[in-house]
Amino acid sequence: MDKKNAFYAQSGGVTAVINASACGLIETARQHSNKIGKVFAGLNGIIGALKEELIDTSEESAQAIAGLRHTPAGAFGSCRYKLKGIEENRAEYERLIEVFKAHNIGYFFYNGGGDSQDTAWKISQLSKTLDYPLTCIGIPKTIDNDLPLTDNCPGFGSVAKYVAVSTMEAGRDVASMAASSTKVFILEVMGRHAGWIAAAAGLAANDDSEPPHIILFPEITFNPEKFIQKVQHTVKQYGYCVIVVSEGVRDESNEFLSAAGLRDAFGHSQLGGVAPVIAGLIKEKLGFKYHWAVADYLQRSARHIASKTDVEQAYALGKAAVEFALAGKNAVLPIIVRKNNQPYEWEIGEAQLSDVANIEKAMPNDYIRDDGFGITPTCRQYLAPLIHGEDYPPYKNGLPQYVTLQNKLVAKKLEAASSLRGI
Amino acid sequence: MDKKNAFYAQSGGVTAVINASACGLIETARQHSNKIGKVFAGLNGIIGALKEELIDTSEESAQAIAGLRHTPAGAFGSCRYKLKGIEENRAEYERLIEVFKAHNIGYFFYNGGGDSQDTAWKISQLSKTLDYPLTCIGIPKTIDNDLPLTDNCPGFGSVAKYVAVSTMEAGRDVASMAASSTKVFILEVMGRHAGWIAAAAGLAANDDSEPPHIILFPEITFNPEKFIQKVQHTVKQYGYCVIVVSEGVRDESNEFLSAAGLRDAFGHSQLGGVAPVIAGLIKEKLGFKYHWAVADYLQRSARHIASKTDVEQAYALGKAAVEFALAGKNAVLPIIVRKNNQPYEWEIGEAQLSDVANIEKAMPNDYIRDDGFGITPTCRQYLAPLIHGEDYPPYKNGLPQYVTLQNKLVAKKLEAASSLRGI
Repeated sequence: MDKKNAFYAQSGGVTAVINASACGLIETARQHSNKIGKVFAGLNGIIGALKEELIDTSEESAQAIAGLRHTPAGAFGSCRYKLKGIEENRAEYERLIEVFKAHNIGYFFYNGGGDSQDTAWKISQLSKTLDYPLTCIGIPKTIDNDLPLTDNCPGFGSVAKYVAVSTMEAGRDVASMAASSTKVFILEVMGRHAGWIAAAAGLAANDDSEPPHIILFPEITFNPEKFIQKVQHTVKQYGYCVIVVSEGVRDESNEFLSAAGLRDAFGHSQLGGVAPVIAGLIKEKLGFKYHWAVADYLQRSARHIASKTDVEQAYALGKAAVEFALAGKNAVLPIIVRKNNQPYEWEIGEAQLSDVANIEKAMPNDYIRDDGFGITPTCRQYLAPLIHGEDYPPYKNGLPQYVTLQNKLVAKKLEAASSLRGI
Repeated sequence: MDKKNAFYAQSGGVTAVINASACGLIETARQHSNKIGKVFAGLNGIIGALKEELIDTSEESAQAIAGLRHTPAGAFGSCRYKLKGIEENRAEYERLIEVFKAHNIGYFFYNGGGDSQDTAWKISQLSKTLDYPLTCIGIPKTIDNDLPLTDNCPGFGSVAKYVAVSTMEAGRDVASMAASSTKVFILEVMGRHAGWIAAAAGLAANDDSEPPHIILFPEITFNPEKFIQKVQHTVKQYGYCVIVVSEGVRDESNEFLSAAGLRDAFGHSQLGGVAPVIAGLIKEKLGFKYHWAVADYLQRSARHIASKTDVEQAYALGKAAVEFALAGKNAVLPIIVRKNNQPYEWEIGEAQLSDVANIEKAMPNDYIRDDGFGITPTCRQYLAPLIHGEDYPPYKNGLPQYVTLQNKLVAKKLEAASSLRGI
């Protein structure tokens, strides 16, 4: 029996370190070339498998693969495309198995969030049903930090560091200007349902006098009166006020404060633009001069200020995925287990895909201060180690030397699938 | 005759490296303590002089002053407060001279943009009129890069690097997502009247295929039809489109595309929010899924990704200001003179305050491509060396170790001024 090839795909919103997981996976697979054949990567994630657009990573040099460790975003392309339930769209699953068969793929590695782990789990079940042996291993990834079981998600630590550093820097800017100019600065950050990213801004402050003075969490219903009072009080006490607001903040009727109504392929609202809403409220009620920023993709792609801890964990998870597969494990994913807080120690653990799929981990209640505007010491203890260490990419002529792969496609062996939804 | 003290003030919008100029100035003054007494810094810029709120920098340790080199924003506070003409408000100028006299100040160092150099020049003239000998030296600073005579302005190089790196990173993010999700990304950057900052994004691209695909300059009247055509063409050709837009872009009736109507103390419009306007247009005309970011203060305070060249020049200008003063020069400012492009070589030159005051340097016409959507090779040649080199601040527990000075005020010797405008 010849050795099987592997399929790897990146899924959902990309991060500063998802390529570090790819790097760990491909480098480790290459070290076990006696057991694993080629690693094929899906062009644009799982869509690449459905369309039989498989990137042959064996065409890439060791140097190029090593460069993935310091390169942000998805080197093979990602996608927002959630497979429906097997009952609803069995053809898609069968198509995947067909492609895997055609290319002698025995290992399926899926690098993504909760939706993707659900897909990976379904595929693992179908391979049993269809009697096509397939080792399915998930690799966690999401800046939202909302996967269960794992102590934290790769991608989050780097966003957390970006947000904390940016809050600290912009906070100093406002403090400099406040006597005669801007008194309020608002930074909008990502986080649809959970306030993990907004919470990370709290790491910038050593005490109440330091920015951010106010954090607005999606977990806390926005109360305009209480908020305005807090802004007024903060400006009176410290001369200025820095606010970090999560895109997911909702009002009393449970509507997002931001107005945008678009939805992505997973059915989530596409948000953005709560900062100007908050700014408008402050202008109307208090008249302070304000500035606002929306970090958007800048926060999740900022490899230049990635957390070293995050990079190391992302790499280790990619590596562990291959090791799990070689150890005969199936339908599992490697996770981060925290062993100790000070000094911070972690190790790789293991979880079942079925226990991770489609479950969002909320922020614990005791991570948000009683007044709803800041983080607790318990939250700080959790978050602090995740931003530890710097891991700068190499630079040339003042710019990071991010790698661009050749992404050569394997020759197709099948007819085009007929039943794919608009891809 | 006893030695004179010095007064130093930071003015206008702060930058990632204005404190590096303060560091160069204070360290150099300390090296010449036989000729220069204490360096007093204005609390919140020139307002500190008017209110006799003088920070005694001699109370700060050598280590704290050295730390200014890697600390963003204005360590002593800045202000947006432009002195009126001498005829209009002679009392303010006389008050300054009164404060300088009371504290034995013989050197006036003003660190700011064109408005501030105008103030410095006026003070130099009044000191002659009032027969109070005062050495007035300007120190250039502005992220807008719009001062004449100097080859570039400290603060700009670091914003340029931030914008180029961020465009490169977010561009890779969009490229990863474009197959099934976001196809257009818009980054709004600063630059009221000149497109220098927007132009810097162009450094991220090696050719037309790379982000940014479109730059919108304030110098080019926005043409919606031509723009939409370009976006459509870009998405068709490359699968996605990254747009960098200057806050100062105007429509055919010369109105800012952004809607905000606030004005700052200098009478400039307070802008922000052109990115969502552009996004709305794309949504309406093309229906592409988009994301947008507004960098705002994040771009000018991002000391973590400062240009080493910029930091060195900012420091050198602060140092040169003291050396000019000691050499008996007056009513001048040190500037950056470019000696060579490849390898980049620069030296300190000298300009008259009167030649710099209130003159804005526009981008040369041949820096913008004929189609109005990008930069020319000539522009690239000018911009490229300004982002060279990295100069990371020290980190502890994952966060930059920016210094916070004690900012102890000198005891007042005068009655409060009666005639100050609302400060």
